[in-house]
Amino acid sequence: MSDVHFNKAEGSKLKLFTPGPVQVPDRVLNAMALANDTHRSGPYSEMHKLAIEGLQKVLYTKNECLIFTSSATGIMEACVRNLISDNEKALFLSIGAFGDRWYQIGVNNGKNSTKAEIEWGKAATPDIVKEELSKDNYAVVCLQANETSTGVYNPVNEIIPIIKDSGALVCIDATSSMAGVKIEVDTLGIDVCLASVQKCFALPPGLAVCSVSSAAFDKAKEVKNRGLYLDFLDLQKKNKVNQTPNTPPIPQIRGLVVQLDYFLNEEGIENRFERHQRLGERTRIWAKKMDLEMFPEKGYESNTVSTMTNTINIDFSKMISTMLDKRYRIVNGYGSLANKTFRIGHMGEITVSELEEMLEILTEVISELK
Amino acid sequence: MSDVHFNKAEGSKLKLFTPGPVQVPDRVLNAMALANDTHRSGPYSEMHKLAIEGLQKVLYTKNECLIFTSSATGIMEACVRNLISDNEKALFLSIGAFGDRWYQIGVNNGKNSTKAEIEWGKAATPDIVKEELSKDNYAVVCLQANETSTGVYNPVNEIIPIIKDSGALVCIDATSSMAGVKIEVDTLGIDVCLASVQKCFALPPGLAVCSVSSAAFDKAKEVKNRGLYLDFLDLQKKNKVNQTPNTPPIPQIRGLVVQLDYFLNEEGIENRFERHQRLGERTRIWAKKMDLEMFPEKGYESNTVSTMTNTINIDFSKMISTMLDKRYRIVNGYGSLANKTFRIGHMGEITVSELEEMLEILTEVISELK
Repeated sequence: MSDVHFNKAEGSKLKLFTPGPVQVPDRVLNAMALANDTHRSGPYSEMHKLAIEGLQKVLYTKNECLIFTSSATGIMEACVRNLISDNEKALFLSIGAFGDRWYQIGVNNGKNSTKAEIEWGKAATPDIVKEELSKDNYAVVCLQANETSTGVYNPVNEIIPIIKDSGALVCIDATSSMAGVKIEVDTLGIDVCLASVQKCFALPPGLAVCSVSSAAFDKAKEVKNRGLYLDFLDLQKKNKVNQTPNTPPIPQIRGLVVQLDYFLNEEGIENRFERHQRLGERTRIWAKKMDLEMFPEKGYESNTVSTMTNTINIDFSKMISTMLDKRYRIVNGYGSLANKTFRIGHMGEITVSELEEMLEILTEVISELK
Repeated sequence: MSDVHFNKAEGSKLKLFTPGPVQVPDRVLNAMALANDTHRSGPYSEMHKLAIEGLQKVLYTKNECLIFTSSATGIMEACVRNLISDNEKALFLSIGAFGDRWYQIGVNNGKNSTKAEIEWGKAATPDIVKEELSKDNYAVVCLQANETSTGVYNPVNEIIPIIKDSGALVCIDATSSMAGVKIEVDTLGIDVCLASVQKCFALPPGLAVCSVSSAAFDKAKEVKNRGLYLDFLDLQKKNKVNQTPNTPPIPQIRGLVVQLDYFLNEEGIENRFERHQRLGERTRIWAKKMDLEMFPEKGYESNTVSTMTNTINIDFSKMISTMLDKRYRIVNGYGSLANKTFRIGHMGEITVSELEEMLEILTEVISELK
């Protein structure tokens, strides 16, 4: 049954223009198909070390990087459990669904959590951040760099220094930006910068990574009931010998090492960031030509996922299913934004010419639906 | 660098007789190398459904099965967080390192945790279990089926009914036994039966699975501060539409579906259990011939991992490294048991003839070291 099933089910004949999981290059798929040794072997530790060192370069940091067997949500929960003491307050700056989720994680873990709810489509601007910080004394501030649900990119280079000035630890969910958009962890002073790998890293899902500052590790030592599975300090202990406390997703880590090598030694990490910027710009130029208004407020549009509003009054569901018939997967708006908006993911290994080819076909589909 | 690195690092030329991660068959590696669609697609949901239905058959249960992006330790923490209220006590029956870990998870999560520490090498017998249960009133009891660190298999068929009689919920870590040893979840009344897939399932690591009884789901509704990432109820909600709340490890799930199909429709699940039993028996016969005493007390030896004591006074580290030169990986005793014991994993896809071939070579190595 497997053959029949997987011929039907697989994405191999689809071109994914999705905000994750994204298209995975053959070099990664081939590497993942190699047999693995155990996670308590020399070969594993060599690989682990390469992963950590590569991540530090991608994040412009000397901070320790950790490997989690989880999705990004696991590390979002780790931030909450490791960094917020019972007598402290945390601020969640939410500009969309993943900001809401982080706040919910705070609440569900019994932490004193405040949500600053910013209208979907808008960014957390310096003025908003200053105002929110003035309302109370927060030990930790959590926010997205790129909000995958709205396609808004927060002005992290401007707002993180403001948050740091307040004395709070700052945690950044860089899930749909890490390895696609330059985030300089040490320059900005980010305490935890986290992501899963099925977005700009162009790996299959099943692995999440983060950098952790020494201030964050020190803070964790004071926080009670951190649990064990997501405990920064337990992970740090084994990281020192290039291992993880529990069995990690070896195939994905092997794929990560292959991709880091590609970013750093073949494409060039700066070129990678520039390519993502061009992908974003090209999509916005196309949208303008099509009279599709961008959902994000001007100046805060993401370069990894573009969200467009239904200003041309066509059936987005129909448009998306027609594109699927042509073997292209683009996606509807997130949750209640479905049909009011749709999204094109342009992250990972997508080239400008692949994007333009897809946009040409999408142009035809839209004109047929009009 | 990737090529050079992976030629050195990979296990492809090694034969793993390890207690996990184990050797992965080509059918799985090939399936994992296929491109993936997104986790919010019809094809993913089809695959998810096949995985859940297959797991229910392997576990002889009608209980709902859940898929976690975590190692088994993640679900051990989920049991603690979902099932133990603040005013309740939990009992951890520990016969080795993984029992100790589960207790530590209870403590680290601030739960009222009691450890019944049973001497390493011994099992949690009905008498011991009755005595421990008589000491206090426990809402939840957690224990290993197979303890990977000692190679002891607990008499779960005898002790679980005793625990159920006490009124406690019972959680079983079946990590190194699920899909290799028959555990009838519904007949025994196991509330949570959990495992990771890099043991008897013969998949690469990065995925953990469990069955959850309706009593356990009901209990979770009453427990506060369950968090979000490991919340049974959040997973259950999305499971109803054959999805997960967060992005799951798609390649491993695809591999799981391939393996479940193989177990149920090709090898036959009962044949699979019998093969593991023969592997255990053959190893014990060999050990006796070699004057290597089994570490577990008689009658409680595991059929998936054999732990042997150094009754022949040879250098186990040297023996293991010599075997590695011959491309066989066997492993040393766990933690403080290193050199006092060593372990042979015989789980997953290993055949009796492959085991005998390895044991023949090991016999030669031992005689050279004597």
